[in-house]
Amino acid sequence: MDVNSEKLLACMLREIRLAALGTFHDNAPLVSLVTFVPADDFSAFYIHVSRLAQHTVDMQKDKRVNLMISEKDDDRPDPLTLARVSIRGAAEFLTPGEPGYTPVKTLYLARFPESEPLFKLGDFGLWKITPRGARYIAGFAKAYNLTPETLIKVSNR
Amino acid sequence: MDVNSEKLLACMLREIRLAALGTFHDNAPLVSLVTFVPADDFSAFYIHVSRLAQHTVDMQKDKRVNLMISEKDDDRPDPLTLARVSIRGAAEFLTPGEPGYTPVKTLYLARFPESEPLFKLGDFGLWKITPRGARYIAGFAKAYNLTPETLIKVSNR
Repeated sequence: MDVNSEKLLACMLREIRLAALGTFHDNAPLVSLVTFVPADDFSAFYIHVSRLAQHTVDMQKDKRVNLMISEKDDDRPDPLTLARVSIRGAAEFLTPGEPGYTPVKTLYLARFPESEPLFKLGDFGLWKITPRGARYIAGFAKAYNLTPETLIKVSNR
Repeated sequence: MDVNSEKLLACMLREIRLAALGTFHDNAPLVSLVTFVPADDFSAFYIHVSRLAQHTVDMQKDKRVNLMISEKDDDRPDPLTLARVSIRGAAEFLTPGEPGYTPVKTLYLARFPESEPLFKLGDFGLWKITPRGARYIAGFAKAYNLTPETLIKVSNR
């Protein structure tokens, strides 16, 4: 992967706030919108979801998920030149009070300060998605398969 | 569903150009970025994809898909107030020359004129997604389950 594609990926993962989460739902794929924040080294991605939401029930049953993050549509003539990455991973619930919970909450609130009240409700919880691999399309016909190690390397860009 | 939520949904389905497509990939969910255009009456949604793409291979094996369309992030304080809809459906390949193919191609090209050259390549093809149902979040904590009939009704807004 060339340096510019690496920089574009790092930039996108740090600046975009929303992702499309894919889960197994009643034996069919479900895609829903979630807010996310990456770990500084891209070794994990954190989402904050309601236990009442379908995707949360899905993750409780099957931890296999996919998180797709794309550049915002800027109304360019050909939107397929937008960069996007599909991260395949395993989802894991973070229990409030467990070691590591507070730094993740701090990281999440730095990006989404408005969600502070949701942390006081019992409904919402933080989940950690650990990447198993990713497919990165850095524009039209420029595709890369990434390992978790490559994602970590890209976080230095 | 209130009239304003219906109007918002109709507007979003007509104006947003990109969707997150969920498919089954090697027995795990995959989410990828696709361009789409709705039928005028929202009875179907059409996508134009490369047969080399993972999602196309997935749809050839299992027609169950989910298409998530969301408002663009406008940097509002709380992005979970953005509207989004997850459409559960069945995908079907449209063979060039079959009845109904040309009107769909015309509809697609009206929205994506830049993709005209892709129709001359053998790689790209049109797929029809017929909704089986949808989950519509018209902002924070405002969720509706929609039938295909409701989607059709909403197309009059």
